[in-house]
Amino acid sequence: MQLGLSFSDSDVSSFTPLVVLELAYDTKAEAITWLLNRIRDKQQNGGAELLVDQVLFPAQDGQKSNPNVFVVGSTLQRLLNGAEDVGLFKEFQDDTMRAFTYANRESFKDFEGDGQTFLSEAECQYIIKHELDTLRAKTEEHVPGYPKLKLYPGKSVVRRLQSKGVLVQYFPLHNKEDLKRLSFSWYKKIKLSFQPLDDIRCYFGEGLALYFGFLEYFTFALVPMALIGIPYYLFDWEDYDKYVLFAVFNLVWSTVFLEVWKRCSATLAYGWGTLSRKKAFEEPRPGFHGALGFNPVTGREEPVYPSSKRQLRIYLVSVPFVLLCLYLSFYVMMVYFDMENWAINIYHENPNFATGILMFVPSIIYAVVIEIMNLLYRYAAEFLTDWENHRLESSYQNHLVLKVLVFNFVNCFASLFYIAFVMQDMVLLRQSLATLLITSQILNQVMEAFLPYWLQRRRNKKAHKRMRRLMGDKELPLLEQVQLETEMNTYLGTFDDYLEQFLLFGYVSLFSCVYPLAAVLVVLNNITEVYSDAFKMCHVFKRPFSEPAANIGVWQLAFETMSIIAVVTNCALIGLSPQVHAYFPESETQLILVVVAIEHILLAFKFILAFVIPDVPKHIQVKLAKLEFDSLEALKKRKILEVAETGDTRNK
Amino acid sequence: MQLGLSFSDSDVSSFTPLVVLELAYDTKAEAITWLLNRIRDKQQNGGAELLVDQVLFPAQDGQKSNPNVFVVGSTLQRLLNGAEDVGLFKEFQDDTMRAFTYANRESFKDFEGDGQTFLSEAECQYIIKHELDTLRAKTEEHVPGYPKLKLYPGKSVVRRLQSKGVLVQYFPLHNKEDLKRLSFSWYKKIKLSFQPLDDIRCYFGEGLALYFGFLEYFTFALVPMALIGIPYYLFDWEDYDKYVLFAVFNLVWSTVFLEVWKRCSATLAYGWGTLSRKKAFEEPRPGFHGALGFNPVTGREEPVYPSSKRQLRIYLVSVPFVLLCLYLSFYVMMVYFDMENWAINIYHENPNFATGILMFVPSIIYAVVIEIMNLLYRYAAEFLTDWENHRLESSYQNHLVLKVLVFNFVNCFASLFYIAFVMQDMVLLRQSLATLLITSQILNQVMEAFLPYWLQRRRNKKAHKRMRRLMGDKELPLLEQVQLETEMNTYLGTFDDYLEQFLLFGYVSLFSCVYPLAAVLVVLNNITEVYSDAFKMCHVFKRPFSEPAANIGVWQLAFETMSIIAVVTNCALIGLSPQVHAYFPESETQLILVVVAIEHILLAFKFILAFVIPDVPKHIQVKLAKLEFDSLEALKKRKILEVAETGDTRNK
Repeated sequence: MQLGLSFSDSDVSSFTPLVVLELAYDTKAEAITWLLNRIRDKQQNGGAELLVDQVLFPAQDGQKSNPNVFVVGSTLQRLLNGAEDVGLFKEFQDDTMRAFTYANRESFKDFEGDGQTFLSEAECQYIIKHELDTLRAKTEEHVPGYPKLKLYPGKSVVRRLQSKGVLVQYFPLHNKEDLKRLSFSWYKKIKLSFQPLDDIRCYFGEGLALYFGFLEYFTFALVPMALIGIPYYLFDWEDYDKYVLFAVFNLVWSTVFLEVWKRCSATLAYGWGTLSRKKAFEEPRPGFHGALGFNPVTGREEPVYPSSKRQLRIYLVSVPFVLLCLYLSFYVMMVYFDMENWAINIYHENPNFATGILMFVPSIIYAVVIEIMNLLYRYAAEFLTDWENHRLESSYQNHLVLKVLVFNFVNCFASLFYIAFVMQDMVLLRQSLATLLITSQILNQVMEAFLPYWLQRRRNKKAHKRMRRLMGDKELPLLEQVQLETEMNTYLGTFDDYLEQFLLFGYVSLFSCVYPLAAVLVVLNNITEVYSDAFKMCHVFKRPFSEPAANIGVWQLAFETMSIIAVVTNCALIGLSPQVHAYFPESETQLILVVVAIEHILLAFKFILAFVIPDVPKHIQVKLAKLEFDSLEALKKRKILEVAETGDTRNK
Repeated sequence: MQLGLSFSDSDVSSFTPLVVLELAYDTKAEAITWLLNRIRDKQQNGGAELLVDQVLFPAQDGQKSNPNVFVVGSTLQRLLNGAEDVGLFKEFQDDTMRAFTYANRESFKDFEGDGQTFLSEAECQYIIKHELDTLRAKTEEHVPGYPKLKLYPGKSVVRRLQSKGVLVQYFPLHNKEDLKRLSFSWYKKIKLSFQPLDDIRCYFGEGLALYFGFLEYFTFALVPMALIGIPYYLFDWEDYDKYVLFAVFNLVWSTVFLEVWKRCSATLAYGWGTLSRKKAFEEPRPGFHGALGFNPVTGREEPVYPSSKRQLRIYLVSVPFVLLCLYLSFYVMMVYFDMENWAINIYHENPNFATGILMFVPSIIYAVVIEIMNLLYRYAAEFLTDWENHRLESSYQNHLVLKVLVFNFVNCFASLFYIAFVMQDMVLLRQSLATLLITSQILNQVMEAFLPYWLQRRRNKKAHKRMRRLMGDKELPLLEQVQLETEMNTYLGTFDDYLEQFLLFGYVSLFSCVYPLAAVLVVLNNITEVYSDAFKMCHVFKRPFSEPAANIGVWQLAFETMSIIAVVTNCALIGLSPQVHAYFPESETQLILVVVAIEHILLAFKFILAFVIPDVPKHIQVKLAKLEFDSLEALKKRKILEVAETGDTRNK
């Protein structure tokens, strides 16, 4: 982190501002004073011991802008102590990663001088977020000025303020110089190279860096499939042997690359110190509510919501709702097939260019409708999961991911399954697959990057102009930056990005032997995806808080499940193909038995492969074992000393 | 532990002897002196700080008995310190299980007075074993008197002596009174009741208690299957619906009970303090050899054996050998079928009682041959795995289990698979299944309990007589006990017991819909199994050292794999049955597709079920979370105090 970069010219603050805190426009003065005092107070008094300053925007157009915007910073000493609090892992002298402790700071590799450059900016901001989140109520019964905002000892102040809208948002500031450097090496450079994952991690944190690492890995992993797929597509190879060979290669390859990814992500996470880092105790999420009771784990007073009630909501409302949505999705699919038939009939009655184009219209409309349904369903799923009132953010996320995944899977692939296995029309399958894939790619890129960018640009220009008009040509970099970033959209996490990759993986793997070109399209898409995602992170959204992640979590499971389903579908497709039928002219039964046997062997092979390939590479395993061994040894030595001491005192 | 039970009347030792150490008859005196000194030496000097005494047997029949037998004991203080060393978990005041520390001893629930009864005897013996195992060489270059027994700093002395046969054995002593009490409540009581698992655990440790817990659980879990199976067998229900219903019930039930077992074992292991206990750093196994190098984890000098060489041995020798054995097993199976045909032909030529009995002879011979092959293969597998030169005992065990499991599975079930799916003869399948199951049960009970018991009894009587002759009627309980137990067989661990249950589970589940009576037979077998196993533990074998275990380990995986294979075989069997064929008179293809679809749905259902049922019950999860939360909080408080203190000193 460059603490040297100071904003002293702006007269706003005498410290490096790292995090912006925006309170509601009409927040009562006493609440603000109280909050600032609590943030500034010493740790032994239960405060966060951070530095806070107000950012005052000049009034403009007679309309006063929000006066309750604050920037938060910290002293270096406090940050280093905080690094110990959050359990940061850093590289030790002996090349292993160890939990940072302030007392041993000199023994860590990158600790030079007073440790100015030891923590990355993302880490500093994460520490400040953690300290703010764990700022707890003491004896206050409510937020001053807000008798309705009840507090009880141990309640996170920030969560309470957030849940009632007094705290509008808090987010880390961009660092313009670092951002410039990062975006240059990331996506502005022309030459082909890997992404600067370590720099991304330093700027955005481990969660995002792992996403970009996965995106890159996934794209490279698809290249062999794409390369092999091209001749299949070009020369129309549909002989039995080559056909089966391609499918088997795809299936084995997809297992291998998912397993190898675990090793890669373990290596990355180890180097970033998140692999062996302990998870902090999770606070209840801001939206969680319930009658006041006692938490059985912490023994603290806090809202308690009976899990039976939640189960009832899940099984009596959410599950039926999801099933209803799935039914709706099937219904829309059937309408699509009617449209498709109608278009084909028109073409057959009057085959010309216009009706030829018309042939593609139902597919395109269907693709658009699918995207819209996914979007609408997403809102409904968020609402429902919120209403289920999960205590922890992680449990909320899991339920949301499950709901969205199931629906998206059915919505995107139901028509393809129907065409493949009910209609058994391979030409139509190929055509639908291509249309769906291409349309969804185009839609995604537009919705995800270009639309927000365009909106953001318009907003930026306006704000820029406004600022300029107000202040003349006087430069006010920090003020302007805070103003601009406050109005930027919030990045909602990697969910949508992973979901997109998950669906693309489905298009590639589920029907790979019918449409070998899918991998090529996905590779092309992902190359632009890297650029558009990088661009959107750097320029479209607010900087997100760093999220320590050791792996891609539930998505690993989702991808693995998809690759299992792919074995089933591909075997079934091969069984259906006329070329294979020709091999078993007399007996269909025998054909099916052979296909089923092959499927079972492939599935067994997948499981054995997953079992045999270790999830963590050997050299990382050794380092982890070393760490554990050292801590055991240290413990033992301390014990023996203690025993010796008690022995001595007894002998005296 | 009853430290009050003293052997002072025997004049042999003034402390409670817990462990017997037997050195070779011709061990050099200087080595013995050195070893005893190291064992008695203080901990700060690198000793084990234990109490040791020699057991001198009177000479008999002109033949001197081994003079180098020692009993090891310990002071209470040392045992309590050792409990901290090995990381024992004990019940704390607040009903959670916490790592025992000597400093906080008063806060643990069962700590009364000076803690005489705090540790169970099995725990005391385990602690002594741990202290002996971790008695390490200091600057000695070799064992005194044995220039060839090289030592290097940090090498476990006991392992080295063991690997060269100087240390013949060391084992814990039985406690006659406790054993009497235990065996009464375990298997001598007539009334029906659960096994006293907690008492078993106190006497034999967690590993064995978990085995008996599993045996009991498995037997109870089979009862519903047995009860439902009886009417099927009696009334010859072979309608399609009932048939399928039974199979589906079995499949779902076997998934559910394996999942629920995980919860049960977590509950047991939590109560016994092994669930959250950290694994100690593993020493190389005694047989491991290699060139002296540096261990990358500990940094210590120790034998190193390149893993590539081991891989070569595994893939170039062990795997081909296993495959060869499997081929042999198939060959024997084909011979069996020839014999079977021959017997049937004889019966058909001349059907009378003698030839009717002859019909069963091939099956019985085959069952016996299978058992013999399993036994021979077991020795070969042990030899090969030993030759693979694994560094850790756990890795040795895993490779051995895998080898033995694969062969036993094929050897026991190959003929059944052949009859079911190649010959498709359901009558023969039923008959073979019954013969195999019953023969192997009888053989097992004989081999496992009655034969060793009979041998042991003969030996006991002889020893008893000899002692009596020598000493007149003077009672010498300890001397006699040590003498007797030294000559008892060593219990080789739960491997064979679990393997037997695994194969029984296979007989029950793989072809359950063909022979519903299998569950009844297994239940009956297991009821006697509990008694014979209990008896053999108490009276046939040396007392084994307690082994801390949190679950049944690799066997959980083995049982789960078996239940997956069972889904496949049962679906296939249903597909083959003529009743089901009658439902699809026109199209065999359709039948197969329906069966395959049902199979896939069942498999998916299994995986979802395994995913949905949490492995650890809620109330244990809460307790584990509480423990973690408390340690985090304690850490935080210490930090804040430290910060405050440094703040204070700076302010001064």
